[in-house]
Amino acid sequence: MRTTLWLAAGLFLAGPLAAEPYSEEDLAIARELRESALAGDGGYEIVAELTTDIGPRLAGSEADARAVEWAVALFEEMGFDRVWTEPATFPTWHRGLERTEVVSPAHHELVTLALGFSPATPKGGIEAEVVMFDDLAALEAADPAEVADRIVFIRNRMERTRTGAGYGRAVGARSVGSRVAAEKGALALVIRSIGTSNNRFAHTGMQRFDSDVRMLPAVAISNPDADLLERLMAGDEPVRIQVEVDAETVEAYTSQNVFAEITGSEMPEEIVAIGAHLDSWDVGTGAIDDGAGVAIVTEAARLIKALDRRPDRSIRIILFAAEEIGLWGGRAWANAREDEIERYQLVAESDFGAGRIYAISARVKDEAWPVIAAIQDELAPLGIEIGDRGGNGGPDFYPAAALGVAAVDLRQDGTEYFDYHHTVNDTLDKIEPDALAQNAAAYAVLAWLGAQAPMDFGSGETILAEEAQREASAD
Amino acid sequence: MRTTLWLAAGLFLAGPLAAEPYSEEDLAIARELRESALAGDGGYEIVAELTTDIGPRLAGSEADARAVEWAVALFEEMGFDRVWTEPATFPTWHRGLERTEVVSPAHHELVTLALGFSPATPKGGIEAEVVMFDDLAALEAADPAEVADRIVFIRNRMERTRTGAGYGRAVGARSVGSRVAAEKGALALVIRSIGTSNNRFAHTGMQRFDSDVRMLPAVAISNPDADLLERLMAGDEPVRIQVEVDAETVEAYTSQNVFAEITGSEMPEEIVAIGAHLDSWDVGTGAIDDGAGVAIVTEAARLIKALDRRPDRSIRIILFAAEEIGLWGGRAWANAREDEIERYQLVAESDFGAGRIYAISARVKDEAWPVIAAIQDELAPLGIEIGDRGGNGGPDFYPAAALGVAAVDLRQDGTEYFDYHHTVNDTLDKIEPDALAQNAAAYAVLAWLGAQAPMDFGSGETILAEEAQREASAD
Repeated sequence: MRTTLWLAAGLFLAGPLAAEPYSEEDLAIARELRESALAGDGGYEIVAELTTDIGPRLAGSEADARAVEWAVALFEEMGFDRVWTEPATFPTWHRGLERTEVVSPAHHELVTLALGFSPATPKGGIEAEVVMFDDLAALEAADPAEVADRIVFIRNRMERTRTGAGYGRAVGARSVGSRVAAEKGALALVIRSIGTSNNRFAHTGMQRFDSDVRMLPAVAISNPDADLLERLMAGDEPVRIQVEVDAETVEAYTSQNVFAEITGSEMPEEIVAIGAHLDSWDVGTGAIDDGAGVAIVTEAARLIKALDRRPDRSIRIILFAAEEIGLWGGRAWANAREDEIERYQLVAESDFGAGRIYAISARVKDEAWPVIAAIQDELAPLGIEIGDRGGNGGPDFYPAAALGVAAVDLRQDGTEYFDYHHTVNDTLDKIEPDALAQNAAAYAVLAWLGAQAPMDFGSGETILAEEAQREASAD
Repeated sequence: MRTTLWLAAGLFLAGPLAAEPYSEEDLAIARELRESALAGDGGYEIVAELTTDIGPRLAGSEADARAVEWAVALFEEMGFDRVWTEPATFPTWHRGLERTEVVSPAHHELVTLALGFSPATPKGGIEAEVVMFDDLAALEAADPAEVADRIVFIRNRMERTRTGAGYGRAVGARSVGSRVAAEKGALALVIRSIGTSNNRFAHTGMQRFDSDVRMLPAVAISNPDADLLERLMAGDEPVRIQVEVDAETVEAYTSQNVFAEITGSEMPEEIVAIGAHLDSWDVGTGAIDDGAGVAIVTEAARLIKALDRRPDRSIRIILFAAEEIGLWGGRAWANAREDEIERYQLVAESDFGAGRIYAISARVKDEAWPVIAAIQDELAPLGIEIGDRGGNGGPDFYPAAALGVAAVDLRQDGTEYFDYHHTVNDTLDKIEPDALAQNAAAYAVLAWLGAQAPMDFGSGETILAEEAQREASAD
């Protein structure tokens, strides 16, 4: 086998690894893939089709099922060696009416989205005085007497960063604000949207859902509406609002993870897995989250499929189900692979929009790091630097972290991602075709060179799994 | 009188007008006003209060009446010499449900606003196949056979410009599209929003309203939704949509123009009038359109009022009623002044958002142009250049153009204005406080030097009235 031969050769070299882990032929193909991806618009066509022909596709909705059919048909039409689905079962939720109105001291209708798995209010809504907190910690520290029988408003605002770190710092207000407010006797929760835009869009998203923990009706209001509510709260008069939510939680729905494979010629049982999630929130058309990812990994694999030779290892696309409402596709995938995770050469998911990739990070065994550096050499013309030795492969691979899967992160510029993410404004026009092509180029190079690598990357060892799980819990 | 003395002195000078039409004292006061305005935040506080305590204030709504009360109270609190109102009566319209859905070949809910004075559809809406036109001219040229029994979609897109000229070129689709489509037997009108933003907001606005002309239910969809509809129309299958509008036209409502005056010490019957409109569309909080204008002219007059001397001529603030739905306040104002327009030294309305002013234009008699140039000298430190010899004073002064009123335009940078204008996204955060202060500074200088000018500017002569009326008809 290639790997063994290469390792034997390596024994004669001074360093722990040769300067050139790849053959000239493999590198030439990597460059050809990169240039083809940059020159083409196949990725953009895919996301245009998904957002136009399917549109919003909340996990468990009728459009979710249509999206699965669409993906299977697309993969079959592209002629992959194998196309199949695997089930993922999860509780889901359907949005109905949602309304936040200030009733005094002035009347205002606030732009509102209910948060995922919010229970409904009684018809006509809940009306109460507002109590405002700077952030989740302030709510946690509050005396229940100041919270009871009121509507809690958490005003913390997400900070704009390239990495998206501001999201992790702010999102607790959304993920657990409702249960904390419920424990203190509040009637409902209103949060400032966990997003960076000053446009008047509310930002929805998941709350930590646990059917035996009591949750309150919970909504997000847009940043301009949160500003307005803060100005009203700064006045002398008490502020009273109405919150109304009509929504329904559905116990169990089964959707599908969708797979396509280019079967490897030398080590077909070893797999490079590149993924994205097929579901979206229900309010935009899911263009940047995660139509872009679907397009990027599909186009990357399509270009490899179109080569006149096969990769040594197999390359798989995985389009995950139900990422948004709890990583259910990712969990199902990991659960089914507990005993064979060492077959996964690397996993990498594209789920951070359509901004350009600026770095490659990887959670791999020490000996494999020089191979990552060699891959980065071929990504450098795309403006991609070497990143840190970490990463988690993307949200749908968090559940596999405990199995010690080797993971690569192609880190995207997320400066503008949270302007659109989880809002009605997540539409095709927010994708810059050239940036999407840069992403497809990087995934094509990564998948190809991952499949041709002279060694395995260490899956099965528990690499940084604890850290990855911690990150997962913040999502 | 000052004017007479100055003109007598002018006879001894070589040119038609002296190089220094203003006294050093008047210029020193202009500079003091300019610096005070730049250093203060009084304007921002006014628009914050209007948008927070009143919010949206569609002419004829309950909030319209509250806005009038608010303005009267504000002017009285500021201690102007006279505060009063004058009635304006107009037909108005109330928005109810509005909905556009693509029903085939895929299902999509499109972000929609009904256009002003749209009639309602039957309950449940109108469903039909879409016929698409590039612009109003293409619809006008169409064979009725291809339009009859269909829903017309006009896809022309507004071009972004500093002056706002792109709006005038595109807005015909909104102002008369419905009646043109009706004549050809269409069932409803859908237009691409007449706005420049790719954010998913629909843009409402007025249609030319004439109770004896048949109009169709008419809506605007956001630019991303219009893109989507175009992509669907490019497919092979016919595109069917549903349009539903519930709305009500109300025959006659009486609102008020609100006035405040600083009475002049020398020529109290001669008036510098600076205006803005108090009403707004119903979907945002009317921050840039036209809370900003209200704040700018009020702050400018407040600073002049705070001087330890009075201006020679009187200075009036006019907050017009019902601009958005047909310039009704401006018409009432002009109608009441048919016989005394020559008393108006100059009129100037701030109604183009909160972008910085970059030029001063004026429609004045030839002999007064050097005085405008002298005013521009004091505006130059604000980055304001001399503009063209034209201008119309702003929308609410269009009806006075036929009377030959002298008008000044402080031209604002409108590059971003149509990103927010007439959308739910017109909120306080879109105003940059420093730019608002620059505007207040310019209006304070203009009003002061207008009031101190050594000659009248020619009101009563019919200056460029025809051109001004033509512009009015495009709004």
